[in-house]
Amino acid sequence: MPAQRLFLDAGGRAPVTPRTADALRAGLADGWADPARLTAESRRARALVDGAREAIAEAWGVHRDNVHLASSVPFAVERLLTGVFTARRGRDRIGVSTIERDLVLDTADFLAPGAVDRYPVDADGHVDIDAVRQGATHPGTALIALQHGNHEIGTLQRLDAVADITEPAGVPLVVDATATIGHVPAPERWDALIADPADWGAPAGLGVIALGPRTRWLPHWPEGSDPWAPGGVSVPLALAAAVALQEMLEGMEAEARRQHALVDRMRAGLARVEGVHLVGDAVERLPHLLTAAFLYLDGEPLVTRLDREGIAVGSGSACGKAAFEPSHVLAAMGALTHGNLRIGLHPGVTEADVDRFLAVLPRVVEQVRQSMTA
Amino acid sequence: MPAQRLFLDAGGRAPVTPRTADALRAGLADGWADPARLTAESRRARALVDGAREAIAEAWGVHRDNVHLASSVPFAVERLLTGVFTARRGRDRIGVSTIERDLVLDTADFLAPGAVDRYPVDADGHVDIDAVRQGATHPGTALIALQHGNHEIGTLQRLDAVADITEPAGVPLVVDATATIGHVPAPERWDALIADPADWGAPAGLGVIALGPRTRWLPHWPEGSDPWAPGGVSVPLALAAAVALQEMLEGMEAEARRQHALVDRMRAGLARVEGVHLVGDAVERLPHLLTAAFLYLDGEPLVTRLDREGIAVGSGSACGKAAFEPSHVLAAMGALTHGNLRIGLHPGVTEADVDRFLAVLPRVVEQVRQSMTA
Repeated sequence: MPAQRLFLDAGGRAPVTPRTADALRAGLADGWADPARLTAESRRARALVDGAREAIAEAWGVHRDNVHLASSVPFAVERLLTGVFTARRGRDRIGVSTIERDLVLDTADFLAPGAVDRYPVDADGHVDIDAVRQGATHPGTALIALQHGNHEIGTLQRLDAVADITEPAGVPLVVDATATIGHVPAPERWDALIADPADWGAPAGLGVIALGPRTRWLPHWPEGSDPWAPGGVSVPLALAAAVALQEMLEGMEAEARRQHALVDRMRAGLARVEGVHLVGDAVERLPHLLTAAFLYLDGEPLVTRLDREGIAVGSGSACGKAAFEPSHVLAAMGALTHGNLRIGLHPGVTEADVDRFLAVLPRVVEQVRQSMTA
Repeated sequence: MPAQRLFLDAGGRAPVTPRTADALRAGLADGWADPARLTAESRRARALVDGAREAIAEAWGVHRDNVHLASSVPFAVERLLTGVFTARRGRDRIGVSTIERDLVLDTADFLAPGAVDRYPVDADGHVDIDAVRQGATHPGTALIALQHGNHEIGTLQRLDAVADITEPAGVPLVVDATATIGHVPAPERWDALIADPADWGAPAGLGVIALGPRTRWLPHWPEGSDPWAPGGVSVPLALAAAVALQEMLEGMEAEARRQHALVDRMRAGLARVEGVHLVGDAVERLPHLLTAAFLYLDGEPLVTRLDREGIAVGSGSACGKAAFEPSHVLAAMGALTHGNLRIGLHPGVTEADVDRFLAVLPRVVEQVRQSMTA
């Protein structure tokens, strides 16, 4: 009998829980009508969306009116950066770290061609605070976009130190929390926040934005009922997102401890493989993510062979344009960019699963290395 | 015992069928992984999305590669018009009819401020063919966007006569079929097509675009994996969209006949109410839509009172920015814009339902008129 599939590629996507699947069903049964209309059916759909926003806002300690559901995460990033940038008329530079997501970097380049300042990171992936300070005090800086935690290597940024700089400088701090919400406590100091329900266990298809009460923002696109979600969001997806977040938060502390220990166990096991480099901060990190870079091999055959053994892992740029584009995150950190493997744990992964992975991996690495020199 | 709710506001949204709900469930169970990655889970998700595109493409007689799933209908409209317009460098005018959807008009105004030609329509809502001819031969016209059928009044445009003009002129014809696909045969002559799965019975949250094989199109936004759906579409929604379309098409001919007769019955009944104007072509029309404008009353109390009687209808601009903004469609046709009522039938509506509505309506109209003069 073949061993059960082992899914270790849960950065951003994972099987949904029964409770979340039920929420999607309920959202479809009660929320099929257009929330923008005026009959009982529409009022019910509107109440579901409002309730979902309310639940998410409450989890973050902000007011519901400051939370917006968007059609997708990239759309949320694009509209948010565009809106904040446009409101800062006369300032034309954008500051980012070198290890932001592709979609943040691409949007910044689109808005401020040739005027995106890339702040370097140290060997563990923490952004250079001096570079942030220089950027924040530059009179041309319209906004600074930094991630809460990295989607590939798991390193958590020290956002308190960053906010200590951006707040007095009056530069809006846009925080990309798409890899962290639901896994660790939400960041507290930001002018705008972006989150990804699919990363906290909801079905993919929504983005979430929170705006600080004083954050200025100007639209720069065709008019419409909802700038964050032209045409409105899917009611079932909104309900499922709120329920999945609630479920994650209920168990977050214990689950974070458990996953942190599992990744420690994995790091210890992987460290015994020849020619491996464990990337990112071993302590100040997301509990569930791990990237390892291997000498003398490519990521694609590694993923493919593990897949055939029944184990799903990631590689390449976690959320890049192509699954095997070399990771700019690893490049920015001076790590090997080709032979890497990215692990994302979800609540269903056990210690026995980790041990199974660790038992299989050295043989597969050896096979890939041999096939590449053959 | 209160009578059952009667939902007659199905233009664009309706309760989903069990088969479509099952498809959504199946899409969630088998399509939760990221289609852009490389493991078995992702391949399965990708196969579901590809299958959905294939099924939709087949229904329209086009190749799968020319069909794109978008994050929403307004997003599809925005990106499509922007892309086609950008590809026609040097031409800066856009032609539309006066009764296009708000989102088409708003996007056109955004792209070509002060250079949108609005072709008038006749008393039944058919676009003036001479105006189209003048527009198509104007050297500055970048594209012409016309709807297949109107979302409020149901009138079907004579697109063959339009294509006879735009094709030799080499002007791209973008057809908004968001109110027609699934209700009547799909239009055959277009350079780009936009459709709305929610209008054919799928859960809302997707738009669909088809491009002619020779239609030129240039991106004008941040790079990303999928210009039509940054971050990808929801796999369960894609599957549900394809299944719902299949179900609609299987029964379309018979259902169109049945609904056409029901609307005829409704028109005959409504014609007996004092001070009513039935808007739109009585014959060349969508089978399921009807708009009636009433003298001496407002739409909002009419909808609200009918809602209290257990009957959901629409009013105002069907898909406008605010539910009770006066309809620009009716204004363009010289009809009353305030006291109107929009009916959208779905497959569950019976002749008995229509008769119940017709029995209730005159009394409610009378009540509203009295309350307004009181």
